[in-house]
Amino acid sequence: MKILILGADGYLGWSMAASLSEDNHELILVDNYSKRKYMKELNRTPLCKMPLVTTRIKILKRLNKNISFYEIDCMSYKKMKSIIKKHKPDAIIHFAELPSAPFSMLNNKYGWDTLHNNLQSTFNLLHCIKDIVPDCHIIKLGTMGEYGTPNIDIEEGWINIRHKNRKDKFLFPRQGSSLYHMSKIMDTDLIWFYVRNYGLNVTDLMQGPVYGIYYDDKHKNDELVPTFTYDDIFGTVLNRFIVQAVVGTPLTVYGSGSQTRGYINVVDTIKCIKLTLENKPKNGELAIYNQFTEQFTVNELANLVKKSLARIDIFAKIKKVSNPRIEKEKHYYNAKHSNIKKLGLKPLKLDKNIIIDIAEYVSRHKNNINTKIIQPRVNW
Amino acid sequence: MKILILGADGYLGWSMAASLSEDNHELILVDNYSKRKYMKELNRTPLCKMPLVTTRIKILKRLNKNISFYEIDCMSYKKMKSIIKKHKPDAIIHFAELPSAPFSMLNNKYGWDTLHNNLQSTFNLLHCIKDIVPDCHIIKLGTMGEYGTPNIDIEEGWINIRHKNRKDKFLFPRQGSSLYHMSKIMDTDLIWFYVRNYGLNVTDLMQGPVYGIYYDDKHKNDELVPTFTYDDIFGTVLNRFIVQAVVGTPLTVYGSGSQTRGYINVVDTIKCIKLTLENKPKNGELAIYNQFTEQFTVNELANLVKKSLARIDIFAKIKKVSNPRIEKEKHYYNAKHSNIKKLGLKPLKLDKNIIIDIAEYVSRHKNNINTKIIQPRVNW
Repeated sequence: MKILILGADGYLGWSMAASLSEDNHELILVDNYSKRKYMKELNRTPLCKMPLVTTRIKILKRLNKNISFYEIDCMSYKKMKSIIKKHKPDAIIHFAELPSAPFSMLNNKYGWDTLHNNLQSTFNLLHCIKDIVPDCHIIKLGTMGEYGTPNIDIEEGWINIRHKNRKDKFLFPRQGSSLYHMSKIMDTDLIWFYVRNYGLNVTDLMQGPVYGIYYDDKHKNDELVPTFTYDDIFGTVLNRFIVQAVVGTPLTVYGSGSQTRGYINVVDTIKCIKLTLENKPKNGELAIYNQFTEQFTVNELANLVKKSLARIDIFAKIKKVSNPRIEKEKHYYNAKHSNIKKLGLKPLKLDKNIIIDIAEYVSRHKNNINTKIIQPRVNW
Repeated sequence: MKILILGADGYLGWSMAASLSEDNHELILVDNYSKRKYMKELNRTPLCKMPLVTTRIKILKRLNKNISFYEIDCMSYKKMKSIIKKHKPDAIIHFAELPSAPFSMLNNKYGWDTLHNNLQSTFNLLHCIKDIVPDCHIIKLGTMGEYGTPNIDIEEGWINIRHKNRKDKFLFPRQGSSLYHMSKIMDTDLIWFYVRNYGLNVTDLMQGPVYGIYYDDKHKNDELVPTFTYDDIFGTVLNRFIVQAVVGTPLTVYGSGSQTRGYINVVDTIKCIKLTLENKPKNGELAIYNQFTEQFTVNELANLVKKSLARIDIFAKIKKVSNPRIEKEKHYYNAKHSNIKKLGLKPLKLDKNIIIDIAEYVSRHKNNINTKIIQPRVNW
């Protein structure tokens, strides 16, 4: 297949590229390095310094010569058009979005940058696909955070509503808790607009917070590890807890810690996307999957990290800090996630070994950890 | 009251300013004339040449000295901030949006301009209000088109959903039929985000297509008539039909003509907004009103124009043309609109006299009509 990956420098984009390069695909990678620029602006550094894609791509090329990279901003309609016209991909995996809730809530500028970048890149993509390769399969990363924490069961993307003796099917109601989440909701609305009006075929993945280092749990190759962030702005919770444990500072639980979310290992994220690549929706169909494997409260995660790492003599403390976010701490949460299993995913359960594995990688780079960037500083 | 009107050069913005200037308010008017620029770019002209706000404001100042105007682009956060900081308004009426579905569907550029202008101006407004005058009442023009044509009754903004023995209240599901409508949906989502997180108080008016000339049916003052468009891109259907009848070309019905919508006279639009000005929601409350007074099919409107104008010896023909839009022509449509009546609106029913009134105004400017800009040219 000819696959275009937008946002190939990122945590998931790079893991995806590395994994797909093992198969016999032609890969076209795109990134504008904007997340790097924002991280630099905010003095946030990843655990390990990441070479640019132009350098890292050489490792992939040992296996697969058919990989190219373009430094392109997806907010440019002209550039997006030229790359799609030139390569006419069979599938496009769209990760080219600013990924952080705290970043989007830092100030007016970053809030608007998040809305603007995410909506315009998605708009450009959809508009170009409609005009140039309408059969191309778009796979888009959404987030479980689009749904918020409603008081009813969260279905997979859609809901049938019966109302006053009539019925219709709608996108499941969405209400995000940050401007980042709002940008993803707008993306979904725009995608469904293009799908129903122009018969595009799109898979939209409502992903839970991801954790992990290696995209492949069989071959744990440090050379191919993606950008691993653990700071207050760009880090996700489980990765951050493990870094805190390794460096000997308490795991900071925001608020009561009873916030429940659906989580997923990066290994499973990559498997899910590969499964959806093989299962293209019909034209005019928007397939939505809730892409997580297990639900945890934040307290459960913290305790699991603590218990697991005690096995390798890392004795973590847990500390509750006042919640920097506006979010419900006590809430109902029951989200469906069976569609991806129907495609064949055998979920990887979060266990001690996985946590120890991540901690050992982090320990090898312990000297790089900057404890000053972990405490939450963005309040909303 | 100190009232800021964003988009004061437009059809509704100007009518609002004119009407409010009769009462004892301080008015701050803002526009960047962008709609004029786009109309010029597309060779679309209104029925009468409109002087700039700086000129027209002199008429209002005969009654009320307390009116100022700023030529400001609401997409500039800095300028939005400075105007709100300077005037600290009690209420803001936000019309500063690109208003046309066909315009948004013309090409990639106008599509993105519509999404971008509408979302960023709303974002800037909400963010400034949160930071500077969180008690200020925002009144925002949405559109009935946000709901689309669902197979269930359209409620006023919200819906209670019972699902698997649990229940919650959500924004009524929305699915627009153009990028313009999508931009309004995104606005509503963003407004609700700011209201629930920061306790702002906002009234969001889901307005149906408007018709009419005078904002006040008692004092029909030609000097204060707003920009009246009748072309394929910026004109609304009833105004367009009347112009077609006056100039002796057939009324062009798109498709079968059974598309049903809720319509409103500009007189009632202005009354509605004045009623909501007097009924500020509580902090943290988003009040949504479906702002239309009567439902018609397009065929009913065409026939009503035909029948009414025969009285003044204008004999119109009706011609069906193939529908340039992707929209359901046969569909269920039953939209609630009782909230605004509860506030006290006595709706003006569309009748022969109203149609004749508009036709007489149009006839006085018959020489200005450009028949070349009426046929639909934007297909989607």
